[in-house]
Amino acid sequence: MITHPAYTVEPWCLRETRLDLDVIAQSESLFALSNGHLGWRGNLDEGEPHGLPGSYLNGVYESHPFPYAEPGYGYPEAGQSVINVTNGKVIRLLVDDQPFDVRYGQLTAHERVLDFHDGLLRRKVQWISPGGKDIRVHTRRLVSLSQRSIGAICYEVEALDQSVRLVMQSELVANETLPRRGIGDPRDSAALVAPLMTEEHTSGGTRVSLLHHTAISGLRLGVAMDHLIDGPASAQVSCASMPDLGRVTVSATLQPGQRLRVVKFVAHGWSAVRSQPAVRDQVAAALAGAMTSGWDGLIAEQRSYLDDFWGGADVEIDGDPAVQQAVRFALFHLLQAGAKAEGRAIASKGLTGPGYDGHAFWDTETFVLPVLTYTAPKAAADALRWRHSILPAARARAVQLGLRGAVFPWRTIAGAECSGYWPAGAAAFHVGADIADAVVRYIDITGDECFAQEVGLELLADTARLWCALGHYDPHRRFRIDGVTGPDEYSAVADNNVYTNLMAQHNLVSAADAAAQYPDQARSLGIDPSEGQRWRDAAAAMVIPYDDALGVHSQDEGFTSHELWHFDQTGADQYPLLMHFPYFDLYRKQVVKQADLVLAMQLRGAAFTAEEKIRNFAYYEALTVRDSSLSACTQAVLAAETGHLDLAYDYLTEAALMDLDNLEHNTRDGLHTASLAGTWIALVQGLAGLRESNGNVIFSPQLPLGIIRLAFTIRVQGRRLHVEISPGATQYRLRDGAPLTSLHDGRPITVTTGVAVSEPNRELPQRTAPTQPAGRVPRRHRRD
Amino acid sequence: MITHPAYTVEPWCLRETRLDLDVIAQSESLFALSNGHLGWRGNLDEGEPHGLPGSYLNGVYESHPFPYAEPGYGYPEAGQSVINVTNGKVIRLLVDDQPFDVRYGQLTAHERVLDFHDGLLRRKVQWISPGGKDIRVHTRRLVSLSQRSIGAICYEVEALDQSVRLVMQSELVANETLPRRGIGDPRDSAALVAPLMTEEHTSGGTRVSLLHHTAISGLRLGVAMDHLIDGPASAQVSCASMPDLGRVTVSATLQPGQRLRVVKFVAHGWSAVRSQPAVRDQVAAALAGAMTSGWDGLIAEQRSYLDDFWGGADVEIDGDPAVQQAVRFALFHLLQAGAKAEGRAIASKGLTGPGYDGHAFWDTETFVLPVLTYTAPKAAADALRWRHSILPAARARAVQLGLRGAVFPWRTIAGAECSGYWPAGAAAFHVGADIADAVVRYIDITGDECFAQEVGLELLADTARLWCALGHYDPHRRFRIDGVTGPDEYSAVADNNVYTNLMAQHNLVSAADAAAQYPDQARSLGIDPSEGQRWRDAAAAMVIPYDDALGVHSQDEGFTSHELWHFDQTGADQYPLLMHFPYFDLYRKQVVKQADLVLAMQLRGAAFTAEEKIRNFAYYEALTVRDSSLSACTQAVLAAETGHLDLAYDYLTEAALMDLDNLEHNTRDGLHTASLAGTWIALVQGLAGLRESNGNVIFSPQLPLGIIRLAFTIRVQGRRLHVEISPGATQYRLRDGAPLTSLHDGRPITVTTGVAVSEPNRELPQRTAPTQPAGRVPRRHRRD
Repeated sequence: MITHPAYTVEPWCLRETRLDLDVIAQSESLFALSNGHLGWRGNLDEGEPHGLPGSYLNGVYESHPFPYAEPGYGYPEAGQSVINVTNGKVIRLLVDDQPFDVRYGQLTAHERVLDFHDGLLRRKVQWISPGGKDIRVHTRRLVSLSQRSIGAICYEVEALDQSVRLVMQSELVANETLPRRGIGDPRDSAALVAPLMTEEHTSGGTRVSLLHHTAISGLRLGVAMDHLIDGPASAQVSCASMPDLGRVTVSATLQPGQRLRVVKFVAHGWSAVRSQPAVRDQVAAALAGAMTSGWDGLIAEQRSYLDDFWGGADVEIDGDPAVQQAVRFALFHLLQAGAKAEGRAIASKGLTGPGYDGHAFWDTETFVLPVLTYTAPKAAADALRWRHSILPAARARAVQLGLRGAVFPWRTIAGAECSGYWPAGAAAFHVGADIADAVVRYIDITGDECFAQEVGLELLADTARLWCALGHYDPHRRFRIDGVTGPDEYSAVADNNVYTNLMAQHNLVSAADAAAQYPDQARSLGIDPSEGQRWRDAAAAMVIPYDDALGVHSQDEGFTSHELWHFDQTGADQYPLLMHFPYFDLYRKQVVKQADLVLAMQLRGAAFTAEEKIRNFAYYEALTVRDSSLSACTQAVLAAETGHLDLAYDYLTEAALMDLDNLEHNTRDGLHTASLAGTWIALVQGLAGLRESNGNVIFSPQLPLGIIRLAFTIRVQGRRLHVEISPGATQYRLRDGAPLTSLHDGRPITVTTGVAVSEPNRELPQRTAPTQPAGRVPRRHRRD
Repeated sequence: MITHPAYTVEPWCLRETRLDLDVIAQSESLFALSNGHLGWRGNLDEGEPHGLPGSYLNGVYESHPFPYAEPGYGYPEAGQSVINVTNGKVIRLLVDDQPFDVRYGQLTAHERVLDFHDGLLRRKVQWISPGGKDIRVHTRRLVSLSQRSIGAICYEVEALDQSVRLVMQSELVANETLPRRGIGDPRDSAALVAPLMTEEHTSGGTRVSLLHHTAISGLRLGVAMDHLIDGPASAQVSCASMPDLGRVTVSATLQPGQRLRVVKFVAHGWSAVRSQPAVRDQVAAALAGAMTSGWDGLIAEQRSYLDDFWGGADVEIDGDPAVQQAVRFALFHLLQAGAKAEGRAIASKGLTGPGYDGHAFWDTETFVLPVLTYTAPKAAADALRWRHSILPAARARAVQLGLRGAVFPWRTIAGAECSGYWPAGAAAFHVGADIADAVVRYIDITGDECFAQEVGLELLADTARLWCALGHYDPHRRFRIDGVTGPDEYSAVADNNVYTNLMAQHNLVSAADAAAQYPDQARSLGIDPSEGQRWRDAAAAMVIPYDDALGVHSQDEGFTSHELWHFDQTGADQYPLLMHFPYFDLYRKQVVKQADLVLAMQLRGAAFTAEEKIRNFAYYEALTVRDSSLSACTQAVLAAETGHLDLAYDYLTEAALMDLDNLEHNTRDGLHTASLAGTWIALVQGLAGLRESNGNVIFSPQLPLGIIRLAFTIRVQGRRLHVEISPGATQYRLRDGAPLTSLHDGRPITVTTGVAVSEPNRELPQRTAPTQPAGRVPRRHRRD
């Protein structure tokens, strides 16, 4: 069993039983609470010590000019960076004359528990102050899944052996000092160091509110807090506000055994267009709503929301407690990332940290949305509606680049391209096809016709138009897409990347199908039948490079002619390679950062024969170094499909433990949302073999030795399907709704409520396990 | 005849007969004086008005940090920019109470003449002050070709109708205010705005000196001036110095017809290592030397130097006065760029302006050095010795990039890579082969064995080693060089660029030959015979992409499969394309910025059949937009070789008039040194068909209609060969030395002093002229 240094392995929670300041920033990410709109990192209530203080509102960013040593046409002029908004989590405590600070005095007990069932972060601390006063602090924190503007904290402190004089300061802190990033880092620019300009601050009673705006992006932010105080009758309450600080102070003397309990309600709001009074009122209204629910009401709503989620999303795995914990941790955080995003992006770190500047990438559509589509479909729809909302920016970018249709940004918060390195960023046009793929999957799996007509068709059409503008027919009427960058960031600007071309093909056909299905909407979007035919023609003529001599697909034209990377001369300390070798060297050799052709075999499986998959997987395994967290889960899926179950499981656990074990040493900056999704992908698309085919779900289940049961529930077309895999057979149960037809190992099955269907699992022949580059074999995972 | 708006067409000078302030910056470049060590732009003596004040010392630069929106391994951390050193040209004049400033009062006569025979810039001005005083100013200026530290000015002023009270201020001005470049331009950084830090300033008598250093690059600069004054006995002289200003003031009252004449001697010096006293003394010594020569001595030395130069370099063309002027203008400026560089680079703008940050590129070896090799061979050797001197930096760069041998920088002043965009810069490894090509040509044409052993072999070996590290053998034992950028900057990071591979092939074979020729030196450089054999093997196995279907070479692998650029949809105002289209779009389509494959056909002509040259030239003509000044001359050469003489002549004149007609609208930033060289290349390598073959020179002369005679002298192996082409025949005369064997149209000829050899010119069949992209046909040049 994997033993986390600081976290116990439990099925329904993440528990920390000692406070290790060396990994405090990692813990802050793991214990982050979010609802997709508001994110609170797991900072200690008293604010310090901290690794990285963080409170985020989805969509709130500041712009900063992009510097270039040599500028070029079409380069983005400015970046967008997520900013740390006003911190509403802070509750400081003075114990006699000593601030409660775990770096001083003596921490005699510490526990934090993030509960996946009820969505609360609990903390229990016992502390002896440097002056010898013994207290117990018990806090519960939530970011509401039912009221998107609301975070709340129930803070209880108890005097133990002696009476103590307590002063509790519940605060709103704007423009917190953050750790510097590094010399010359453009994100240390003045605009980002103290991004919030004050507009107003008010206080009265137990209530304080602050309003700010950002200087360049021009967003207005409001935050307000109110409190319910329960303590000795002699307790005194006062409040104060300053431009960057709001404070409610409670002073009390507690006798031994006596308690002071404060419930803090914090409401956040922001707008790019609404006026100061409007934002002020919006925040006050949200706060009033939360106060009406009260603390008990909020936690009941939270539990109810999560019960509903788990009822359609839980994954059980018998035989591996660590993976059991990891997959629930992953699903919980994926829900947190998307639940209430409502028209904003799901960023690559969710709202758990400032990594990647808070940007959303293609990861969302390719890794996160498949999971949400099957487990929290409304969140998936919301994320795609965000893409739809930035179509104007994507169309403008296409015009700027001399193209047609929509060019979605490689990385963005609000829609503008924010990639400062075009070969890896702006040339990765596959993001458009990834969005289209997510649209098609969402529509197929949910049957959401309204979405298909309002959002889906237009996204499909504008992405399809891009491929027609980007590609061209060669003299033999083959459709080529030259000079683009596929998923593998160790290749760039290559011709006919197989992944890109296959995804574009799917994009084109899906757009044509959708236009045929919704002719009225198609007409209103200016799609005439000849355009649909052009899409089909391009798809049919798509070039897919194949190396006859090697008997494998070439990741792009010429790739298999390139020199093999000298893995035997590359030391373990030279990974990730991009930190130790120049791009030009990586680009010109056969070395793969992350699944590219292998991802194509997952997402466009029907485009490959089983034999091709086996050969391709083996060939690219030997080249793939997994310097990206967006690789292990895909390798798990294809390892499983090609009959390498143990290898699949090793990749599965790598994806699953990415953040819990801090495998890439950067969990401090936020969770790897796509890798969290990869845990589910590796289990459900890998071991259970879930795919979509003609709008239906299909399965090819198998279990590696040692895993005695894998069970999960997914939402399909408004119904919940429960799948339970044993070593020899798989049982399908429909929890609700009309009968569902599916395939098990290629055989049709129909599942009806109340009747379990059991099917034997296939048995794959033993095959020689593929090899990885020297030193890049995945960690062998012992299952207990 | 081309009529320059401001310059008359004369065979031996450039003359400006009116002062047009709209083109003053262009004039400053055209009238720049330089000796390769010190450069003075043609600023007016009185300093203002100016377009761009400029005084440069070869090798003097300041560093400035390079910003990156997204940093990457191996990116240069700092740039190097040429700085404007202390201006020693300034002589201000107060006429009664009015400063002599042509923007005020009345300029009744103006003439400036740059004389290619004596190397002087003469200025004659007649001016009526706003107060009605009439004066005549006559100045002569030189930058000495014999004393590299020295510039000098003879300044004469005469009172005409009335007596005038004159105050003349001869100055040294440090940290002049320069025009700003643009918002956010990193070269407007503080380090470059006022780059000179004062160290000392002294004055006494008619003499002032200033010492400064640069803050980051740590270079020490000294400048001193002294004067000879000849005027009325009542003239008063005083002097003063401040940290950034030295001034000698001469006050006199001139009666009508009376003159004041001041000769100003300015000595510059700099060092990266020498102490303050040492640099101070070095400058004082140089000044003493110049004072000893005196003004007349300096102009006599200048004339003598130039007589010697023209005796081995002149080009005469009968039938086109504008081109006659242009080729002498070009040769004069090429000499100025390289004459006394002595261990420093020849920058792309010489020392005529700050364009391209004062960097040297591959242009020097590929365009400038062939001309200097045949006309001023010592300057060519010096430039290559500079490359040899930066070998340590080039080897360190190779190590940084994981390669072996030497990686010469794409652009640099002092040796460090200064390219901020690696796909166009750092991946253009052909620079190494270009240097090797220049080394081989220099050795072959001069027979300089000492250079070959001291410098040549090591340069050839270290560049050859790079190709072995960069390329690899595919399974069929073909040697591939993948992922590099050739000369055409509208393609990047492509596999097996024909130009690069052919130049690398030549580099490898030449290195092996040199190692065999100098076995002792080879051994001392660690080259064993097996390494030489590896070089030959790689050269023999080199992949040269050829498109069988089209019957042409593919510029790189895949190039001819790419979409054709939509020239018919590209407007005239969308050139240069890189200002209006993103790189990714240019890279992925068939569009050529500048000769690439066509340059390969010039430099590696024997690698192509005559038929291949005809087909290739026609194919690439239709794709080449000449958005670079490094193209027209090469197209001229191949147009001539493939029998399109009129087209060749059009390209010839484009190269010739690049700066005189300001064709690229940026002559203000300095002259296009490579295009100046292109004038000679187009005439001598184009019309006369000069090539090298097995160490001999060969000719294939022909003249377009209207050109009745082309004659030129070149230096070959210590001798001067005079070639005179008439429409029907060519006459060869050896001016001195042992008999010389050559080829005329493939037939061997031997030329002996005193005996002219006459050979008939070949007649090429009429062929259909190739076409250019819409709107990119070269300007038709009318010859009178």
